[in-house]
Amino acid sequence: MNNPSDITKESITQAQERIKHYIEHTPVLTSNSLNELAGCQLFFKCENFQKVGAFKARGAMNAALSLTEEERKKGLATHSSGNHAQALARAAKILNTKSYIVMPRTAPEIKKKGVRAFGGEIFECEPTLQAREETLANVIAKTGSTEIHPFNNYKVMEGQATCAKELFEQAGQLDIVMAPVGGGGLLSGTALAAKFFSPTTKVIAGEPAGSDDAYRAMQSGKIEQAQSNTIADGLLTSLGDKTFPIIYENVKEIITVTDEEIIAAMRLIWERLKIIVETSCAVPFAAVLKDKEKFSGKRVGIILTGGNVDLEKIGKWFAS
Amino acid sequence: MNNPSDITKESITQAQERIKHYIEHTPVLTSNSLNELAGCQLFFKCENFQKVGAFKARGAMNAALSLTEEERKKGLATHSSGNHAQALARAAKILNTKSYIVMPRTAPEIKKKGVRAFGGEIFECEPTLQAREETLANVIAKTGSTEIHPFNNYKVMEGQATCAKELFEQAGQLDIVMAPVGGGGLLSGTALAAKFFSPTTKVIAGEPAGSDDAYRAMQSGKIEQAQSNTIADGLLTSLGDKTFPIIYENVKEIITVTDEEIIAAMRLIWERLKIIVETSCAVPFAAVLKDKEKFSGKRVGIILTGGNVDLEKIGKWFAS
Repeated sequence: MNNPSDITKESITQAQERIKHYIEHTPVLTSNSLNELAGCQLFFKCENFQKVGAFKARGAMNAALSLTEEERKKGLATHSSGNHAQALARAAKILNTKSYIVMPRTAPEIKKKGVRAFGGEIFECEPTLQAREETLANVIAKTGSTEIHPFNNYKVMEGQATCAKELFEQAGQLDIVMAPVGGGGLLSGTALAAKFFSPTTKVIAGEPAGSDDAYRAMQSGKIEQAQSNTIADGLLTSLGDKTFPIIYENVKEIITVTDEEIIAAMRLIWERLKIIVETSCAVPFAAVLKDKEKFSGKRVGIILTGGNVDLEKIGKWFAS
Repeated sequence: MNNPSDITKESITQAQERIKHYIEHTPVLTSNSLNELAGCQLFFKCENFQKVGAFKARGAMNAALSLTEEERKKGLATHSSGNHAQALARAAKILNTKSYIVMPRTAPEIKKKGVRAFGGEIFECEPTLQAREETLANVIAKTGSTEIHPFNNYKVMEGQATCAKELFEQAGQLDIVMAPVGGGGLLSGTALAAKFFSPTTKVIAGEPAGSDDAYRAMQSGKIEQAQSNTIADGLLTSLGDKTFPIIYENVKEIITVTDEEIIAAMRLIWERLKIIVETSCAVPFAAVLKDKEKFSGKRVGIILTGGNVDLEKIGKWFAS
């Protein structure tokens, strides 16, 4: 799969079929009190209940299952300090092959533990993009393994597209579907799922104001550098050259939100839906609450991306 | 309904039918990683997703719907500072009648707000049992309303029994079913549901060591005074004269757990199931982890009672 046009209605349907025995068919939750508060009808797609606690299980599994027998045997490799690392290690374990995960030595111990629990082999490096890429190149040269990038990979994007496809099937006709944007794997997949399976549904993304490269890219028409001034630590990445064009063409709008708005939205989700979601996960709902008029009376689907929270951090988020 | 023998297989089935349009049919969650950790197969019945965030919606609704037309018109009354207060106010609102809720003046503002949101009228009193009972008696004398006690009421107990009945229907044959015990409304209902619908299932309760009156009552054969040395603030009540005999006869065992054990169990539920549960709610799972041998290899149903958590408190629970 080498072109964006290789991701089609049929290929996403096939991906859904391919991964279905390896992932959760996650529920869609609704809440009268949140609908009242937001002034629209909200449908929350709960990927926090997904395997490894995040939608990343979809893309990693789809990419891994799409390799040739020979590729698969030599193992899977990536650099990631987040949920993709665990998702890929899990996919490798299911396929009875190896995974090689490059992680900055500063990555939290719990993330490393998660990777090791699935039998992943970790290669530590300095916490710079250059060090990550060099280390990964060395690992691949030595092992012959195949890189599966966290987002800038068509098979990963196709896998993430299955999430919005499911949401359309579960919630019925939606006026708007929303996802957060970091590297753009989920957002590009969501945009393609809407294009093929629900063409009247507008795609709107939420992005932290403290890392608003996608917002700026939509203005400038080119990939912009991400910053990292936000608690939404899953969204600190710039768009990739594979995700950006799809997002630029198919996403209606990106709404930026502050950390205060993210925390307030996350708190509402915790309190009203009684579920645990990550900071990054609350960004689209924060965007709805910020720009209520835009969503007024609409049927709005929101992908809740993940629930891997460091509970030791939450004291300071919710202190009165 | 004036006798324990009035709660029958048929009456619980009727209660389930009576309340079904007014409550959530809550999901049952499972987790491979928690099963591994506990050494048994766990089925979590998620009443944290119930209306008003707790199983109390069942009993209150069943009791309210069972009143005569004339009783109903004059309104519902109770003293409660917890989830039952909101559950009763909600039931009254649905039935288009009034609710009179006696609350200690020290009750958290958020609980009062919850009651008022359902149109409940609050009567504040001093935070003693005597003051509560006197104030309630006055309110009833003035309004002619009917008291619906939080647990010591057969219609409430019958309503709570529908929860375990649902769990048996959802999870299939269980070796053990567990609930926490405070006043004993849920536990007595659970015991009766097991007796009628799953007679080979043993009923085991969890109780905080810092308020272990039910544990002591099982030894002494009479109601014992509750203490309040625990963070499980939903379980500070002594058993009632209607709940105790049913529990004494039908509950196999009560396991007590410390606050540290409760917090550790709650944390696991938050982290692995990605859902918000109250401290009180984690007590039975804490008992499973404490006494693993007893549950080894068994199919164990656990009622997760509620998810109404004051998020400002959680910083100190999870500090490293």
